[in-house]
Amino acid sequence: MKPIITAELEIVALGTGSTSMSPYISEAVRAIENLGIKYQLTPMGTVIEVSSVDEAFNTAKAAHEAVMKKGAKRVVIHLTIDDRKDAPKDMDEKIESVESKI
Amino acid sequence: MKPIITAELEIVALGTGSTSMSPYISEAVRAIENLGIKYQLTPMGTVIEVSSVDEAFNTAKAAHEAVMKKGAKRVVIHLTIDDRKDAPKDMDEKIESVESKI
Amino acid sequence: MKPIITAELEIVALGTGSTSMSPYISEAVRAIENLGIKYQLTPMGTVIEVSSVDEAFNTAKAAHEAVMKKGAKRVVIHLTIDDRKDAPKDMDEKIESVESKI
Amino acid sequence: MKPIITAELEIVALGTGSTSMSPYISEAVRAIENLGIKYQLTPMGTVIEVSSVDEAFNTAKAAHEAVMKKGAKRVVIHLTIDDRKDAPKDMDEKIESVESKI
Repeated sequence: MKPIITAELEIVALGTGSTSMSPYISEAVRAIENLGIKYQLTPMGTVIEVSSVDEAFNTAKAAHEAVMKKGAKRVVIHLTIDDRKDAPKDMDEKIESVESKI
Repeated sequence: MKPIITAELEIVALGTGSTSMSPYISEAVRAIENLGIKYQLTPMGTVIEVSSVDEAFNTAKAAHEAVMKKGAKRVVIHLTIDDRKDAPKDMDEKIESVESKI
Repeated sequence: MKPIITAELEIVALGTGSTSMSPYISEAVRAIENLGIKYQLTPMGTVIEVSSVDEAFNTAKAAHEAVMKKGAKRVVIHLTIDDRKDAPKDMDEKIESVESKI
Repeated sequence: MKPIITAELEIVALGTGSTSMSPYISEAVRAIENLGIKYQLTPMGTVIEVSSVDEAFNTAKAAHEAVMKKGAKRVVIHLTIDDRKDAPKDMDEKIESVESKI
Protein backbone atom coordinates (compact mmCIF):
# COMPACT_ATOMS: atom_id res chain seq x y z
CA MET A 1 0.00 0.00 0.00
CA LYS A 2 1.24 3.45 -0.93
CA PRO A 3 1.44 5.85 1.98
CA ILE A 4 -1.24 8.51 1.56
CA ILE A 5 -2.24 11.08 4.10
CA THR A 6 -5.01 13.61 3.64
CA ALA A 7 -5.07 16.82 5.56
CA GLU A 8 -6.99 20.07 5.66
CA LEU A 9 -5.67 23.54 6.20
CA GLU A 10 -7.76 26.49 7.23
CA ILE A 11 -6.10 29.85 7.65
CA VAL A 12 -7.36 33.21 8.89
CA ALA A 13 -5.49 36.49 9.10
CA LEU A 14 -6.50 38.71 12.01
CA GLY A 15 -6.27 42.46 12.36
CA THR A 16 -6.13 43.14 8.65
CA GLY A 17 -9.00 45.62 8.66
CA SER A 18 -10.71 43.68 5.92
CA THR A 19 -13.19 40.85 6.24
CA SER A 20 -11.90 39.38 2.98
CA MET A 21 -9.53 36.46 3.42
CA SER A 22 -9.02 35.53 -0.24
CA PRO A 23 -5.94 37.77 -0.73
CA TYR A 24 -4.24 35.76 2.02
CA ILE A 25 -5.67 32.34 1.17
CA SER A 26 -4.60 32.71 -2.45
CA GLU A 27 -0.99 33.31 -1.31
CA ALA A 28 -1.17 30.17 0.81
CA VAL A 29 -2.53 28.15 -2.11
CA ARG A 30 0.19 29.46 -4.41
CA ALA A 31 2.80 28.30 -1.89
CA ILE A 32 1.15 24.85 -1.85
CA GLU A 33 1.20 24.75 -5.65
CA ASN A 34 4.88 25.72 -5.69
CA LEU A 35 5.63 22.68 -3.57
CA GLY A 36 3.89 20.50 -6.14
CA ILE A 37 1.43 19.24 -3.56
CA LYS A 38 -1.89 17.88 -4.79
CA TYR A 39 -4.68 19.97 -3.33
CA GLN A 40 -8.38 20.71 -3.52
CA LEU A 41 -9.95 24.04 -2.62
CA THR A 42 -13.17 23.79 -0.61
CA PRO A 43 -15.42 26.63 0.57
CA MET A 44 -13.95 26.23 4.06
CA GLY A 45 -10.31 25.32 3.53
CA THR A 46 -7.74 23.55 1.42
CA VAL A 47 -7.48 19.78 1.41
CA ILE A 48 -4.07 18.35 0.57
CA GLU A 49 -2.88 14.86 -0.26
CA VAL A 50 0.63 14.03 0.90
CA SER A 51 2.79 10.99 1.46
CA SER A 52 3.93 11.63 5.02
CA VAL A 53 3.09 13.57 8.14
CA ASP A 54 6.31 15.52 7.58
CA GLU A 55 5.06 16.61 4.19
CA ALA A 56 1.77 17.74 5.74
CA PHE A 57 3.64 19.89 8.25
CA ASN A 58 6.00 21.29 5.62
CA THR A 59 3.06 22.25 3.44
CA ALA A 60 1.29 23.94 6.33
CA LYS A 61 4.48 25.79 7.17
CA ALA A 62 4.87 27.08 3.61
CA ALA A 63 1.25 28.22 3.58
CA HIS A 64 1.66 29.95 6.93
CA GLU A 65 4.81 31.77 5.82
CA ALA A 66 3.12 32.94 2.63
CA VAL A 67 0.27 34.50 4.62
CA MET A 68 2.69 36.17 7.00
CA LYS A 69 4.74 37.47 4.08
CA LYS A 70 1.57 39.03 2.64
CA GLY A 71 1.53 41.27 5.70
CA ALA A 72 -0.67 39.61 8.30
CA LYS A 73 0.34 40.37 11.86
CA ARG A 74 -1.64 37.54 13.42
CA VAL A 75 -2.41 34.27 11.71
CA VAL A 76 -4.43 31.38 13.09
CA ILE A 77 -4.01 28.04 11.34
CA HIS A 78 -6.18 24.97 11.78
CA LEU A 79 -4.49 21.88 10.44
CA THR A 80 -6.28 18.53 10.50
CA ILE A 81 -4.29 15.44 9.58
CA ASP A 82 -5.93 12.08 8.93
CA ASP A 83 -3.27 9.38 9.00
CA ARG A 84 -4.70 5.94 8.28
CA LYS A 85 -2.14 3.16 8.17
CA ASP A 86 -4.27 0.04 7.62
CA ALA A 87 -6.06 1.17 4.48
CA PRO A 88 -4.85 4.56 3.21
CA LYS A 89 -7.22 6.29 0.79
CA ASP A 90 -6.57 9.22 -1.51
CA MET A 91 -8.84 12.25 -1.72
CA ASP A 92 -11.17 10.79 -4.34
CA GLU A 93 -11.40 7.40 -2.65
CA LYS A 94 -12.42 8.96 0.64
CA ILE A 95 -15.34 10.74 -0.99
CA GLU A 96 -16.37 7.67 -3.00
CA SER A 97 -16.28 5.57 0.14
CA VAL A 98 -18.96 7.77 1.70
CA GLU A 99 -20.98 8.35 -1.47
CA SER A 100 -21.27 4.64 -2.15
CA LYS A 101 -23.04 4.21 1.18
CA ILE A 102 -25.53 7.07 0.97
CA MET B 1 -27.95 40.68 0.46
CA LYS B 2 -29.25 37.21 1.09
CA PRO B 3 -28.08 35.70 4.36
CA ILE B 4 -25.68 32.85 3.59
CA ILE B 5 -23.54 31.01 6.07
CA THR B 6 -21.08 28.29 5.16
CA ALA B 7 -20.00 25.71 7.69
CA GLU B 8 -18.02 22.50 7.82
CA LEU B 9 -18.78 19.41 9.80
CA GLU B 10 -16.25 16.72 10.59
CA ILE B 11 -17.38 13.70 12.59
CA VAL B 12 -15.49 10.75 14.03
CA ALA B 13 -16.90 7.76 15.89
CA LEU B 14 -14.59 6.36 18.59
CA GLY B 15 -14.41 2.87 20.02
CA THR B 16 -16.09 1.21 17.05
CA GLY B 17 -13.34 -1.35 16.50
CA SER B 18 -13.09 -0.31 12.87
CA THR B 19 -10.87 2.32 11.32
CA SER B 20 -13.53 2.92 8.67
CA MET B 21 -15.65 5.99 9.26
CA SER B 22 -17.73 5.93 6.06
CA PRO B 23 -20.59 3.84 7.58
CA TYR B 24 -21.07 6.63 10.11
CA ILE B 25 -20.36 9.58 7.85
CA SER B 26 -22.85 8.31 5.29
CA GLU B 27 -25.57 8.27 7.96
CA ALA B 28 -24.71 11.84 8.86
CA VAL B 29 -24.84 12.91 5.22
CA ARG B 30 -28.19 11.19 4.75
CA ALA B 31 -29.54 13.16 7.70
CA ILE B 32 -28.27 16.37 6.12
CA GLU B 33 -29.92 15.44 2.83
CA ASN B 34 -33.20 14.72 4.62
CA LEU B 35 -33.19 18.27 5.96
CA GLY B 36 -32.86 19.56 2.39
CA ILE B 37 -29.61 21.31 3.24
CA LYS B 38 -27.22 22.08 0.37
CA TYR B 39 -23.94 20.31 1.03
CA GLN B 40 -20.65 19.30 -0.53
CA LEU B 41 -18.63 16.27 0.50
CA THR B 42 -14.88 16.84 0.79
CA PRO B 43 -12.16 14.30 1.62
CA MET B 44 -12.04 15.72 5.15
CA GLY B 45 -15.61 16.67 6.00
CA THR B 46 -18.92 17.97 4.80
CA VAL B 47 -19.40 21.60 3.87
CA ILE B 48 -22.93 22.97 4.21
CA GLU B 49 -24.58 26.16 3.05
CA VAL B 50 -27.30 27.48 5.33
CA SER B 51 -29.21 30.69 5.89
CA SER B 52 -28.66 31.11 9.63
CA VAL B 53 -26.47 30.06 12.50
CA ASP B 54 -29.49 28.22 13.91
CA GLU B 55 -29.74 26.17 10.75
CA ALA B 56 -26.03 25.31 11.00
CA PHE B 57 -26.51 24.04 14.54
CA ASN B 58 -29.69 22.13 13.66
CA THR B 59 -27.90 20.43 10.78
CA ALA B 60 -24.96 19.49 12.99
CA LYS B 61 -27.38 18.13 15.57
CA ALA B 62 -29.17 15.94 13.03
CA ALA B 63 -25.84 14.62 11.77
CA HIS B 64 -24.67 13.90 15.30
CA GLU B 65 -27.87 12.05 16.18
CA ALA B 66 -27.63 9.95 13.03
CA VAL B 67 -24.11 8.81 13.94
CA MET B 68 -25.17 8.00 17.49
CA LYS B 69 -28.20 6.08 16.19
CA LYS B 70 -25.86 4.01 14.03
CA GLY B 71 -24.37 2.66 17.25
CA ALA B 72 -21.39 4.86 18.10
CA LYS B 73 -20.72 5.15 21.83
CA ARG B 74 -18.48 8.16 21.54
CA VAL B 75 -18.70 10.80 18.86
CA VAL B 76 -16.47 13.82 18.40
CA ILE B 77 -17.79 16.58 16.17
CA HIS B 78 -15.83 19.51 14.79
CA LEU B 79 -18.13 22.24 13.51
CA THR B 80 -16.69 25.34 11.89
CA ILE B 81 -19.07 28.19 11.09
CA ASP B 82 -18.08 31.13 8.93
CA ASP B 83 -20.61 33.91 9.37
CA ARG B 84 -19.86 36.92 7.22
CA LYS B 85 -22.37 39.72 7.45
CA ASP B 86 -20.89 42.44 5.24
CA ALA B 87 -20.53 40.39 2.06
CA PRO B 88 -21.95 36.86 2.41
CA LYS B 89 -20.74 34.39 -0.21
CA ASP B 90 -22.12 31.01 -1.14
CA MET B 91 -19.99 27.87 -1.46
CA ASP B 92 -19.09 28.43 -5.10
CA GLU B 93 -18.38 32.13 -4.67
CA LYS B 94 -15.95 31.45 -1.84
CA ILE B 95 -13.89 29.12 -4.01
CA GLU B 96 -14.01 31.47 -7.01
CA SER B 97 -12.89 34.35 -4.83
CA VAL B 98 -9.66 32.48 -4.03
CA GLU B 99 -9.16 30.94 -7.47
CA SER B 100 -9.42 34.31 -9.19
CA LYS B 101 -6.43 35.51 -7.18
CA ILE B 102 -4.08 32.54 -7.64
CA MET C 1 -24.64 7.82 34.82
CA LYS C 2 -25.28 11.52 34.58
CA PRO C 3 -25.17 12.88 31.05
CA ILE C 4 -22.08 15.06 30.67
CA ILE C 5 -20.75 16.49 27.46
CA THR C 6 -17.59 18.54 27.17
CA ALA C 7 -17.06 20.93 24.31
CA GLU C 8 -14.64 23.62 23.24
CA LEU C 9 -15.38 26.90 21.57
CA GLU C 10 -12.86 28.98 19.72
CA ILE C 11 -13.97 32.27 18.19
CA VAL C 12 -12.20 34.78 15.98
CA ALA C 13 -13.50 38.09 14.69
CA LEU C 14 -12.22 39.05 11.24
CA GLY C 15 -11.84 42.49 9.70
CA THR C 16 -11.77 44.34 13.01
CA GLY C 17 -8.53 46.19 12.27
CA SER C 18 -7.08 44.96 15.56
CA THR C 19 -5.11 41.80 16.23
CA SER C 20 -6.54 41.69 19.73
CA MET C 21 -9.37 39.22 20.19
CA SER C 22 -9.92 39.61 23.94
CA PRO C 23 -12.58 42.36 23.60
CA TYR C 24 -14.66 39.87 21.59
CA ILE C 25 -13.80 36.72 23.53
CA SER C 26 -14.69 38.41 26.81
CA GLU C 27 -18.17 39.18 25.45
CA ALA C 28 -18.58 35.55 24.45
CA VAL C 29 -17.49 34.37 27.89
CA ARG C 30 -19.88 36.77 29.57
CA ALA C 31 -22.71 35.31 27.51
CA ILE C 32 -21.68 31.81 28.60
CA GLU C 33 -21.63 32.93 32.22
CA ASN C 34 -25.09 34.46 31.85
CA LEU C 35 -26.40 31.08 30.80
CA GLY C 36 -24.99 29.57 33.98
CA ILE C 37 -22.83 27.17 32.00
CA LYS C 38 -19.72 25.76 33.71
CA TYR C 39 -16.67 26.78 31.72
CA GLN C 40 -12.90 26.94 31.78
CA LEU C 41 -10.83 29.49 29.88
CA THR C 42 -7.75 28.09 28.15
CA PRO C 43 -5.09 30.00 26.18
CA MET C 44 -6.71 28.74 22.97
CA GLY C 45 -10.44 28.66 23.66
CA THR C 46 -13.21 28.10 26.15
CA VAL C 47 -14.08 24.62 27.36
CA ILE C 48 -17.64 24.11 28.52
CA GLU C 49 -19.37 21.32 30.40
CA VAL C 50 -23.00 20.75 29.47
CA SER C 51 -25.65 18.08 29.85
CA SER C 52 -26.75 17.72 26.24
CA VAL C 53 -25.72 18.40 22.69
CA ASP C 54 -28.54 20.94 22.52
CA GLU C 55 -27.04 22.83 25.41
CA ALA C 56 -23.65 22.85 23.67
CA PHE C 57 -25.20 24.36 20.55
CA ASN C 58 -27.24 26.89 22.54
CA THR C 59 -24.13 28.00 24.37
CA ALA C 60 -22.18 28.37 21.14
CA LYS C 61 -25.05 30.35 19.68
CA ALA C 62 -25.14 32.76 22.62
CA ALA C 63 -21.37 33.24 22.38
CA HIS C 64 -21.58 33.85 18.64
CA GLU C 65 -24.36 36.41 19.03
CA ALA C 66 -22.41 38.25 21.71
CA VAL C 67 -19.40 38.61 19.42
CA MET C 68 -21.58 39.79 16.55
CA LYS C 69 -23.30 42.29 18.85
CA LYS C 70 -19.89 43.67 19.81
CA GLY C 71 -19.55 44.78 16.20
CA ALA C 72 -17.72 42.04 14.32
CA LYS C 73 -18.69 41.79 10.67
CA ARG C 74 -17.26 38.33 10.16
CA VAL C 75 -16.98 35.69 12.85
CA VAL C 76 -15.51 32.22 12.52
CA ILE C 77 -16.42 29.72 15.22
CA HIS C 78 -14.79 26.36 15.84
CA LEU C 79 -16.93 24.18 18.07
CA THR C 80 -15.71 20.75 19.13
CA ILE C 81 -18.16 18.48 20.94
CA ASP C 82 -17.07 15.28 22.67
CA ASP C 83 -20.14 13.17 23.40
CA ARG C 84 -19.27 9.96 25.22
CA LYS C 85 -22.24 7.82 26.13
CA ASP C 86 -20.64 4.74 27.72
CA ALA C 87 -18.60 6.51 30.37
CA PRO C 88 -19.20 10.27 30.46
CA LYS C 89 -16.51 12.27 32.26
CA ASP C 90 -16.62 15.84 33.49
CA MET C 91 -13.88 18.38 32.77
CA ASP C 92 -11.75 17.46 35.79
CA GLU C 93 -12.13 13.73 35.28
CA LYS C 94 -10.95 13.98 31.70
CA ILE C 95 -7.73 15.69 32.75
CA GLU C 96 -7.18 13.27 35.67
CA SER C 97 -7.67 10.34 33.35
CA VAL C 98 -4.73 11.45 31.23
CA GLU C 99 -2.55 12.67 34.11
CA SER C 100 -2.85 9.38 35.94
CA LYS C 101 -1.28 7.62 32.96
CA ILE C 102 1.66 9.96 32.31
CA MET D 1 9.59 41.08 22.09
CA LYS D 2 10.29 37.41 22.64
CA PRO D 3 8.77 35.15 20.01
CA ILE D 4 5.95 33.15 21.61
CA ILE D 5 3.47 31.00 19.80
CA THR D 6 0.63 29.15 21.45
CA ALA D 7 -0.93 26.12 19.87
CA GLU D 8 -3.42 23.39 20.71
CA LEU D 9 -3.22 19.76 19.83
CA GLU D 10 -6.19 17.41 19.88
CA ILE D 11 -5.62 13.77 18.98
CA VAL D 12 -8.00 10.86 18.53
CA ALA D 13 -7.17 7.25 17.74
CA LEU D 14 -9.74 5.46 15.57
CA GLY D 15 -10.53 1.77 15.35
CA THR D 16 -9.07 0.91 18.74
CA GLY D 17 -12.18 -0.87 19.99
CA SER D 18 -12.16 1.29 23.09
CA THR D 19 -13.87 4.62 23.66
CA SER D 20 -11.07 5.59 26.04
CA MET D 21 -8.48 7.92 24.56
CA SER D 22 -6.36 8.53 27.67
CA PRO D 23 -3.94 5.64 26.97
CA TYR D 24 -3.07 7.35 23.69
CA ILE D 25 -3.21 10.95 24.87
CA SER D 26 -0.89 10.16 27.78
CA GLU D 27 1.71 8.84 25.32
CA ALA D 28 1.41 12.03 23.31
CA VAL D 29 1.82 14.16 26.42
CA ARG D 30 4.86 12.16 27.51
CA ALA D 31 6.43 12.83 24.12
CA ILE D 32 5.73 16.55 24.56
CA GLU D 33 7.32 16.45 28.01
CA ASN D 34 10.38 14.68 26.63
CA LEU D 35 10.90 17.57 24.24
CA GLY D 36 10.89 19.96 27.18
CA ILE D 37 7.95 21.86 25.74
CA LYS D 38 5.79 23.87 28.14
CA TYR D 39 2.24 22.54 28.00
CA GLN D 40 -1.12 22.65 29.70
CA LEU D 41 -3.64 19.81 29.65
CA THR D 42 -7.24 20.86 29.10
CA PRO D 43 -10.36 18.68 29.04
CA MET D 44 -10.35 18.91 25.24
CA GLY D 45 -6.69 18.93 24.23
CA THR D 46 -3.17 19.98 25.06
CA VAL D 47 -2.08 23.59 24.77
CA ILE D 48 1.60 24.18 24.11
CA GLU D 49 3.80 27.26 24.23
CA VAL D 50 6.62 27.32 21.73
CA SER D 51 9.01 29.83 20.22
CA SER D 52 8.46 29.12 16.53
CA VAL D 53 6.04 27.57 14.09
CA ASP D 54 8.67 24.91 13.42
CA GLU D 55 8.66 23.96 17.08
CA ALA D 56 4.87 23.70 17.03
CA PHE D 57 5.04 21.30 14.09
CA ASN D 58 7.87 19.28 15.62
CA THR D 59 5.91 18.90 18.83
CA ALA D 60 2.79 17.81 16.97
CA LYS D 61 4.89 15.32 15.03
CA ALA D 62 6.37 13.80 18.18
CA ALA D 63 2.91 13.50 19.72
CA HIS D 64 1.54 11.90 16.57
CA GLU D 65 4.36 9.36 16.41
CA ALA D 66 3.87 8.45 20.05
CA VAL D 67 0.18 7.67 19.46
CA MET D 68 1.01 5.62 16.37
CA LYS D 69 3.71 3.75 18.29
CA LYS D 70 1.12 2.89 20.96
CA GLY D 71 -0.65 0.85 18.30
CA ALA D 72 -3.27 3.10 16.71
CA LYS D 73 -3.97 2.29 13.07
CA ARG D 74 -5.69 5.55 12.31
CA VAL D 75 -4.97 8.83 14.01
CA VAL D 76 -6.66 12.17 13.43
CA ILE D 77 -4.84 15.25 14.69
CA HIS D 78 -6.24 18.75 15.01
CA LEU D 79 -3.50 21.31 15.41
CA THR D 80 -4.35 24.97 15.91
CA ILE D 81 -1.53 27.49 15.82
CA ASP D 82 -1.97 31.09 16.90
CA ASP D 83 0.98 33.12 15.65
CA ARG D 84 0.79 36.75 16.71
CA LYS D 85 3.71 38.87 15.67
CA ASP D 86 2.76 42.37 16.87
CA ALA D 87 2.17 41.51 20.52
CA PRO D 88 2.97 37.89 21.36
CA LYS D 89 1.43 36.62 24.59
CA ASP D 90 2.27 33.51 26.58
CA MET D 91 -0.36 31.05 27.83
CA ASP D 92 -1.04 32.89 31.08
CA GLU D 93 -1.15 36.31 29.47
CA LYS D 94 -3.73 35.17 26.95
CA ILE D 95 -6.08 34.02 29.69
CA GLU D 96 -5.48 37.16 31.79
CA SER D 97 -6.19 39.31 28.77
CA VAL D 98 -9.69 37.86 28.51
CA GLU D 99 -10.35 37.61 32.25
CA SER D 100 -9.49 41.25 32.81
CA LYS D 101 -12.30 42.23 30.46
CA ILE D 102 -15.08 40.00 31.77
